[in-house]
Amino acid sequence: MNATTLTWMRNLGGKFIVFDGPDGSGKSTQFRRFAALVQQQGVGLCEVREPGGTAIGEQIRTILLDPANDDMDLRCEMLLYMASRAQLTAQRIEPAMREGKLVLADRFISSTMAYQGSAGGIPVADILRTGQIALRQCWPDLVVVFDVDEATAATRLSPLLDRMEQKGSDYHRIVRQGYLEQARNDPRRYLVLDARADVETVFSQLLSGLENMLGNLPLRD
Amino acid sequence: MNATTLTWMRNLGGKFIVFDGPDGSGKSTQFRRFAALVQQQGVGLCEVREPGGTAIGEQIRTILLDPANDDMDLRCEMLLYMASRAQLTAQRIEPAMREGKLVLADRFISSTMAYQGSAGGIPVADILRTGQIALRQCWPDLVVVFDVDEATAATRLSPLLDRMEQKGSDYHRIVRQGYLEQARNDPRRYLVLDARADVETVFSQLLSGLENMLGNLPLRD
Repeated sequence: MNATTLTWMRNLGGKFIVFDGPDGSGKSTQFRRFAALVQQQGVGLCEVREPGGTAIGEQIRTILLDPANDDMDLRCEMLLYMASRAQLTAQRIEPAMREGKLVLADRFISSTMAYQGSAGGIPVADILRTGQIALRQCWPDLVVVFDVDEATAATRLSPLLDRMEQKGSDYHRIVRQGYLEQARNDPRRYLVLDARADVETVFSQLLSGLENMLGNLPLRD
Repeated sequence: MNATTLTWMRNLGGKFIVFDGPDGSGKSTQFRRFAALVQQQGVGLCEVREPGGTAIGEQIRTILLDPANDDMDLRCEMLLYMASRAQLTAQRIEPAMREGKLVLADRFISSTMAYQGSAGGIPVADILRTGQIALRQCWPDLVVVFDVDEATAATRLSPLLDRMEQKGSDYHRIVRQGYLEQARNDPRRYLVLDARADVETVFSQLLSGLENMLGNLPLRD
């Protein structure tokens, strides 16, 4: 595949695509692979990761992922993710999109909807409302969900878990259902991939899925 | 006054009162004085300050007040204040109110409405909407605004200014107008004091103003 020119990828310029899914879904591996291919195809790329991705966002990330902060209120947690995201949007995502680059994000508001919303218990409508204030018009064009069952995900996680990863398996099962529910509610913007398969298979499904969906994206507001 | 029993102060138990106003309004001096009197009168007291007031909130405060973070997006800033406030509400304010204590806060959402809202440009309605998610039912019973003109305030500020205090005088004038507008929109919950006078005079107006308003507070939702 490396030698091929993938013409459909030229349509990625100015788009905003999120890779998301439960911990252990393999999304970060796919992210790196896809980013490398995009650059090899000559498409301008802006990679961001959440939480963090800016100097201020990394300071927020430190607070969020510190296991010592285990008494964090759920609304505080949600608002910290949103604060980091507002900074990321203003400082990196909006400028990159204006320059016609593809913005590729490892996690975004879909993570907050799944973790603090579906699994945590904050109404997803409240998260969307906060997102409208934090992100203004800068919503993703496409969210790729790497869907994986709890058992497969567990085999892929490092034994050194951060504060979010330390939560139990029921929590992670509800997280997964949260992602699938988002996709059911917004099928034109969500691409769900079966991420139990090996890296090559998932990557090939990712490419064909993106190619199919790119011609049929909902218009920006 | 120290020897007198002020019977009306017994009605402060279980209430939530915010002292607010522009930098240099003298509110923190009045806060300390009032807190001392409340305790001397035997009323249980929970004092909080914003941003901060919890271990997690102090970590957020560090990010907010660091002059190196001068590229902070305004929505990020607003959400960080709200995150700190959500933690403070859950961890300290709600428990203290349930125990029948007076909660006395040095700044609260009224500061965000004035600084990031009126002066910064975020619609105040967006801040109130975020507040409904961050605070749930835990809104102040009373907000005391220490109103002071720009010139008087400037004489009271330390030459070592933090990130918020470094903004210019136009900014601070709009902050002041923001507080006054809040008071006009919610007169039963706001007490505006002329804070240009000396400490004794302002304190005496504070006490008589609070006594008058306490019998006539809006009911909690």
